[in-house]
Amino acid sequence: MTDQTTNWPDHLTGDAQPLEVGILLYEGHTALDLVGPYTTFALAGMKVHLVAETLDPVVSDDGGMTIAPTTTFDDCPERLDILFVPGGGMVYKPMLDPATIAWLADRGATASYITAVCNGPLVLAAAGLLDGYRVATHWASRDQLARLGVEVSTERVCIDRNRFSGGGVTAGIDFGLTVVAHTLGEKAARFAQLVMEYDPEPPFNAGSPESAGPEIVALRTRFMAEPDTALRNAVSHVLEQRAATSSHPVSDENADPAAGIVND
Amino acid sequence: MTDQTTNWPDHLTGDAQPLEVGILLYEGHTALDLVGPYTTFALAGMKVHLVAETLDPVVSDDGGMTIAPTTTFDDCPERLDILFVPGGGMVYKPMLDPATIAWLADRGATASYITAVCNGPLVLAAAGLLDGYRVATHWASRDQLARLGVEVSTERVCIDRNRFSGGGVTAGIDFGLTVVAHTLGEKAARFAQLVMEYDPEPPFNAGSPESAGPEIVALRTRFMAEPDTALRNAVSHVLEQRAATSSHPVSDENADPAAGIVND
Repeated sequence: MTDQTTNWPDHLTGDAQPLEVGILLYEGHTALDLVGPYTTFALAGMKVHLVAETLDPVVSDDGGMTIAPTTTFDDCPERLDILFVPGGGMVYKPMLDPATIAWLADRGATASYITAVCNGPLVLAAAGLLDGYRVATHWASRDQLARLGVEVSTERVCIDRNRFSGGGVTAGIDFGLTVVAHTLGEKAARFAQLVMEYDPEPPFNAGSPESAGPEIVALRTRFMAEPDTALRNAVSHVLEQRAATSSHPVSDENADPAAGIVND
Repeated sequence: MTDQTTNWPDHLTGDAQPLEVGILLYEGHTALDLVGPYTTFALAGMKVHLVAETLDPVVSDDGGMTIAPTTTFDDCPERLDILFVPGGGMVYKPMLDPATIAWLADRGATASYITAVCNGPLVLAAAGLLDGYRVATHWASRDQLARLGVEVSTERVCIDRNRFSGGGVTAGIDFGLTVVAHTLGEKAARFAQLVMEYDPEPPFNAGSPESAGPEIVALRTRFMAEPDTALRNAVSHVLEQRAATSSHPVSDENADPAAGIVND
């Protein structure tokens, strides 16, 4: 990729070639995981593709939001500037879907930036795209990402070479602005931030397990037990597949869920 | 509405009647305006309806995101707990659409809470639902909301009796958590905030005209000239309609765009 930071905002007038972004759209994604970064990219003048195996509309994890893909795995541009995977309550589905994993591995081989937020990095890890990288994820998914051999960061936005990642759901906005700044320059990011009026004033202080406290954390554990179990099982399945196809089986660090997590 | 704050989280298990939310879904909405509040409502266990005149998928203002309505104006529950209107680059369309205005006036007559973010309040104002109320909106739309006779607040989230409103785009997350706290209790809001990991760390300080500075504000003025003009024209049209149907024509304060804006 040539340096695009010098000629922005020509991307908004069509006078510069837009960056091509491919976002994986899958059944059971979290809509806000997708729409936060999408908005920062689109406002900065990037061309964003919502990519799925077919053009059939895709339902979010709460069952209430149905979003249409804009292109398919086959028709998506061969060469993406940015590959992005949102998280979701059913992230285990793309993790275990051979067509999705093959598409990510293919586009990931040439994309300039390989990115994800929330538990989306689990899908990139299943596709073998995070080996040897430090990566952020939703606080509740850190132990599972570590099981896949990824060095887990507790940062809200983590940059390791061309891997950009973010924490849970709303971290996608901070992540998106960071990606925009690195690819199109700080002016583009500040423009997007102003248009989005991103000057947050959370009415409560409960955005982390520490600030929310044990009662609220216990409620999350109770009401997310089903997707949490499905994710654990999917990670086990990926590890079994790796062991079956490798002469050096990957050890499962599940016995110590905190292994591999680096506090930043 | 009975006090729902005491029996939450029974809404998450189906043991309590969920609050019914009606979100106006219209061509040219801003997807993040909609998905931020949607996510807070859905996480707290509310039943959220995406409502349009027909079930045809609806395209966002940047043309890249297509979302399916879940119900129609006719089939939406008669009695809504929360009526919500997101903003959008083509907000002038619902403002000038008789079927939309009629539906908002109808459901607004009985809804417990009448709410909007970004430039969404312009649609509520066009439907006559904000007369005599203090209301927040996107910073760039304040002058136009004031022209419709609404007392404009510069708060990020504004509460005036049962009218809840928020500033631009991302303010919808702060707004949504505030609505959840008022309807289902602070515990429900803190639960949603933790699941969304809403612990924002904006990488830049550019979320307001003051912090972004004149160069970035000028870029927004340049690249949003078309929707800004369309919105001004729509407000003029609403004022002309009011004048034509009223024996006391509403004066147009366009000559002084800052009239009616209260700095909080």
